[in-house]
Amino acid sequence: MPSLADISRICGVSLGATSKALSGKPGVSEATRKRILSVATQYNYRPNRLVHAIQKGCSMTVGLTCNDFRSDFSGRIIEGMLEVLYGADYDAIVISWDLCVQGGEQVLQTFAERRVDGLLMFPPADQPSLAYVQELRNFRRPIVVVDQTFAGCEDYDFVGSQDFEGGVLATEHLLKLGHRKIANICHRKTSTGRARLDGFLQAMARHGVTVHEKWIREVVHYGSDEPLTAARELLSASKEERPTALVCFNDWIALDVMGAAQDVGLRVPDDVSVMGFADLRASTSVRPRLTTVAQDPMEIGRRAATRLLGLLDERASQEKEGLLARFSRAPLMDRVPVRLVARESTGQAAVLV
Amino acid sequence: MPSLADISRICGVSLGATSKALSGKPGVSEATRKRILSVATQYNYRPNRLVHAIQKGCSMTVGLTCNDFRSDFSGRIIEGMLEVLYGADYDAIVISWDLCVQGGEQVLQTFAERRVDGLLMFPPADQPSLAYVQELRNFRRPIVVVDQTFAGCEDYDFVGSQDFEGGVLATEHLLKLGHRKIANICHRKTSTGRARLDGFLQAMARHGVTVHEKWIREVVHYGSDEPLTAARELLSASKEERPTALVCFNDWIALDVMGAAQDVGLRVPDDVSVMGFADLRASTSVRPRLTTVAQDPMEIGRRAATRLLGLLDERASQEKEGLLARFSRAPLMDRVPVRLVARESTGQAAVLV
Repeated sequence: MPSLADISRICGVSLGATSKALSGKPGVSEATRKRILSVATQYNYRPNRLVHAIQKGCSMTVGLTCNDFRSDFSGRIIEGMLEVLYGADYDAIVISWDLCVQGGEQVLQTFAERRVDGLLMFPPADQPSLAYVQELRNFRRPIVVVDQTFAGCEDYDFVGSQDFEGGVLATEHLLKLGHRKIANICHRKTSTGRARLDGFLQAMARHGVTVHEKWIREVVHYGSDEPLTAARELLSASKEERPTALVCFNDWIALDVMGAAQDVGLRVPDDVSVMGFADLRASTSVRPRLTTVAQDPMEIGRRAATRLLGLLDERASQEKEGLLARFSRAPLMDRVPVRLVARESTGQAAVLV
Repeated sequence: MPSLADISRICGVSLGATSKALSGKPGVSEATRKRILSVATQYNYRPNRLVHAIQKGCSMTVGLTCNDFRSDFSGRIIEGMLEVLYGADYDAIVISWDLCVQGGEQVLQTFAERRVDGLLMFPPADQPSLAYVQELRNFRRPIVVVDQTFAGCEDYDFVGSQDFEGGVLATEHLLKLGHRKIANICHRKTSTGRARLDGFLQAMARHGVTVHEKWIREVVHYGSDEPLTAARELLSASKEERPTALVCFNDWIALDVMGAAQDVGLRVPDDVSVMGFADLRASTSVRPRLTTVAQDPMEIGRRAATRLLGLLDERASQEKEGLLARFSRAPLMDRVPVRLVARESTGQAAVLV
């Protein structure tokens, strides 16, 4: 690809004249401008955004970290982000935490060296180290944390889902159907998992329904055999000892629970009701179709990117006015609403015997 | 973030001395070097890769286009790419075709202005326009096409799956189980869909089994109701008129076919066998678990990125030696092997009546 210098050399005019002609600024004759533009087109010249980035101190790029590209949930968040970023002429440099990164610090160094203007951050799968949280403070560019919170992220803007409210919704749906023996397969490792479980516990308490310790099952890796094993154990108990409904951390776990029910000869929803969370593509592929708490990942992505662009604007005008580029206001905590989508995997509790 | 000039000003030394000290080059005293390094650390200085990129004519970034972030198939390809790129100190600028791009040309312009060194390209969902294919030629940087081919991409290296062979494998698995009445729900719009269908047709012909025109069903949008509708029609016919097995373009369609079977009261695999393609996460969540042709998306991603890095190396040494940076050799066509994963959705054909 030819550089500005190449074009100026081919045209036999100064670098300044070439730059003026190509950027539409005055100071060159119409004939020269036409000639330069024609050569630029012929040689497929493109302006160099790296030069602009250095000149303006603004690269028009955003760093994006993700730890799971395999899920349509994070995929749709990324799509929402890219839609907004691309519309504002920003591009995203994308790095996968879990695959690429040993210590989180390395990602931030890369982003700093690339001079990204800000960061859209899905937190890594595990709680970041203290060193990482410190490095994040040194980053000194706007950051929006997405989907999950972690200890040390309290100063940053956050966009995610109404996880607590979703936990309440899921539980109340089952309570309304007459269920009292409700189990929960949870995922306490993540902030979303803790919030959904809290919603479950609060809804149960509010309705005066006992929560049985043995029916709260922790799953550490929901992509493993753990959910299936936990569900088989719960559902293999005698009719009196087993739950009539299960609230699950997400749709993947709920699909495993439906599989486990079938494996042990129970019908969904006749013998056991199953609730998901997310509304993934797979939730309508299965039979019975999964009842779930639908999140809105595209909207999460759009809001997170819009927020980051807002912070960048704010910062730019503060710098113009010579103010300290520090944000004194309280960080945003934006939780996109969820909604219950009742399908076929939940039904009336059997009449008590 | 402080610039090199900021550090040099704070230290009261020249820009040249600062640069030498930070890049470990000779020409500064040990005491000065130590002082500069200490200030750089204190102020969290990071080298500016944009400056390096301009100086070296090599940005160490790769453009990555994708049209579906919602699938764990493309997600895993991206993970494989990022793993290799990140390991070689490259970063990826990621753009979503279908959401962000009106005409494909725009993406290439963005990438050209960002001075990406090369391109990893999932083709857009629809056949690119002639204008786009021409723009691609003008791009003049190494390109590796991934997963799908399209008219006009013949000059570029390609990494994908053994789609044709997979179509054969799927069909022969069913033939071996005694099936003769085999339908195919296909997706001719894509190169992968055409290759898989060709594999099916060839396997059927090789075994002398008749292909019924009415049992070849085209699905244009596999995320829509089309697969379910097609499958319900096929499976609602009388026992004599309906297929005993279905080969599907991918797992999503296969899951819909399993749903349709259940909807019309047929058992899988007792009444009808169902074959997927991909081996997505959802294929083991359902009951019966899906028999499928497993692709290896991580490996596709790794090989595509490795190939692109190889092309970049090749080009760099050609330029060093003053050779024309044109590639005269035949483009690579690398198809990662697939394998049959027999699970529970396929079984022996019922004894003929």
